[in-house]
Amino acid sequence: MIDIEAFKRMSYGLYIVSSGNQDEGNGYISNSVFQVTAKPAQIAACCNKDNYTSKIIEKTGSYSISILHNEAETSVIDKFGYQSGADVDKLQGMKVEYGGTGVPIVLNSVIAWIECKVVKTVDVGTHIMFIGEVLQTEVIDDSKPSMTYKEFKEKKNRVAPANAPTHIEEPSDSDETSGKSSSGKYQCTQCGFIYDDSEEDTPFEDLPDDWTCPVCGAKKSDFKPI
Amino acid sequence: MIDIEAFKRMSYGLYIVSSGNQDEGNGYISNSVFQVTAKPAQIAACCNKDNYTSKIIEKTGSYSISILHNEAETSVIDKFGYQSGADVDKLQGMKVEYGGTGVPIVLNSVIAWIECKVVKTVDVGTHIMFIGEVLQTEVIDDSKPSMTYKEFKEKKNRVAPANAPTHIEEPSDSDETSGKSSSGKYQCTQCGFIYDDSEEDTPFEDLPDDWTCPVCGAKKSDFKPI
Repeated sequence: MIDIEAFKRMSYGLYIVSSGNQDEGNGYISNSVFQVTAKPAQIAACCNKDNYTSKIIEKTGSYSISILHNEAETSVIDKFGYQSGADVDKLQGMKVEYGGTGVPIVLNSVIAWIECKVVKTVDVGTHIMFIGEVLQTEVIDDSKPSMTYKEFKEKKNRVAPANAPTHIEEPSDSDETSGKSSSGKYQCTQCGFIYDDSEEDTPFEDLPDDWTCPVCGAKKSDFKPI
Repeated sequence: MIDIEAFKRMSYGLYIVSSGNQDEGNGYISNSVFQVTAKPAQIAACCNKDNYTSKIIEKTGSYSISILHNEAETSVIDKFGYQSGADVDKLQGMKVEYGGTGVPIVLNSVIAWIECKVVKTVDVGTHIMFIGEVLQTEVIDDSKPSMTYKEFKEKKNRVAPANAPTHIEEPSDSDETSGKSSSGKYQCTQCGFIYDDSEEDTPFEDLPDDWTCPVCGAKKSDFKPI
C-alpha cells in the first residue's frame, strides 16, 4: 500500500528556477532542486514537461536557481508558482540579473543564487531532470534563513502546484465541494488559497459560477469548504 | 565565482537509504533523497559510487528510504553516516523490517518509510542517481516532525560525510590544525565530531598520534581547534 502521507514527511527547500535570456525568460517555483555531486558541483532540477520553463531550459541549456528566504513575499510565490509563462511575462517588474550564460536570475525575496549549465537531461516520465554543472553562485543576503517547503505550505496556505513532483491530488467530493462552510472559509484544491468570507465583500456562495481563483485561476467548483 | 556558502542555503531532509536482503544488507545516511514524479510516485536517491550500499542497490535493484525524526538518536546517525558497511554490519542490533522486494527497512528513530524498485540509474560522475518507483510506504510515528539536514548539522554537531553530494572540504590550515584550542574544543573536519577536553579524561593534545575520531575514524591531524 502506498500511503501518500509518507511523502509529506520528506523535507525540501523552495526555489525559483529560471531560464531564457533578455528577450525571452521565465521561471517557476520548485522544491525539487538538490545538489547531486560536490566535485564538480552539480545541481539537479526536476521540471514538469508541460512547464513553460522546461522548454526554455531545453532550448538554451542553462538555468538559474534563486533560493527564497523564509519571509518571501506571497506575491512572488504566487506569480512564479501558480501562473504560466505562456500567459504572463513573469519577469516583468521583477529584480533580475543575467548570468554569464545570459540566463535571468530572479533576486526578489532571494538570499542566494546558483547559475548552471545543463550537462545531462534525464526523462523520468511526467518530468525532466536537468543535471546542471554550477558555473557561479552568490550569497546576496545573509540576514535571513532559507524558506523550507514545509514553511511555504504552512505560512502561505499553499499546496504544491499540479505540475510539481510532490503534488497530491485531493479526492474530489462533490457533496463537500458544493457544501456551505461553517467557518466561512473555502480552500482552493489546486493551490491552497483560502477564500475567507469575513475578509471579502462577497460571501463565497454568492460568487458567480464563472468566478476563478485569484491565485491560480482554478474554477469555483475546485474550492472546498474547510 | 563559486561561493560554496550558496549551497549551504539549500534545504534537505535526513534519511537512511538501505538495500540488500536478509543475508546481506546495509544502509547509509543521506540528505539527497527527493520525489521526482507524482504519477507514478518515483523517488531519486543520489549515492556515492564508493558507498558500500551503492553496490548492493545495483545488485538487488531495490532500496528503502527511512525518514528520520527530529530527535533521531546520535548513535543511529553516527552508525549509518560515518561507518562503512565494508567494516561493520550496520543492521545488527537495529529494528529492521523487510519489504516486498526483501529489502531491509530501518525503523530506529524513523517516522515513515518508502520502498522503491530501481527503474533507472543515472551516472552523474562521483555519484549514481537511483530513480526508484515507489512500491509501498508506511507512516509509523505521527508524533514527531522530520529531521531536516539543517537541524542535523546544528543539533548533532556533524558535517556531511566525505561521500555526500553536499560535502564541503574545509581548507586545510596546518598552523591551525596543530594549534592549541583556547576553548579546549577540537572538531573533526571529516564528520564534525567535537572533542571537548572538559568532558574527557585525556586532553586532546596528549592523545597519541595514532588516535582516531571515535565517530568516523579520521586521524588526529584531521581535527582543528575551535
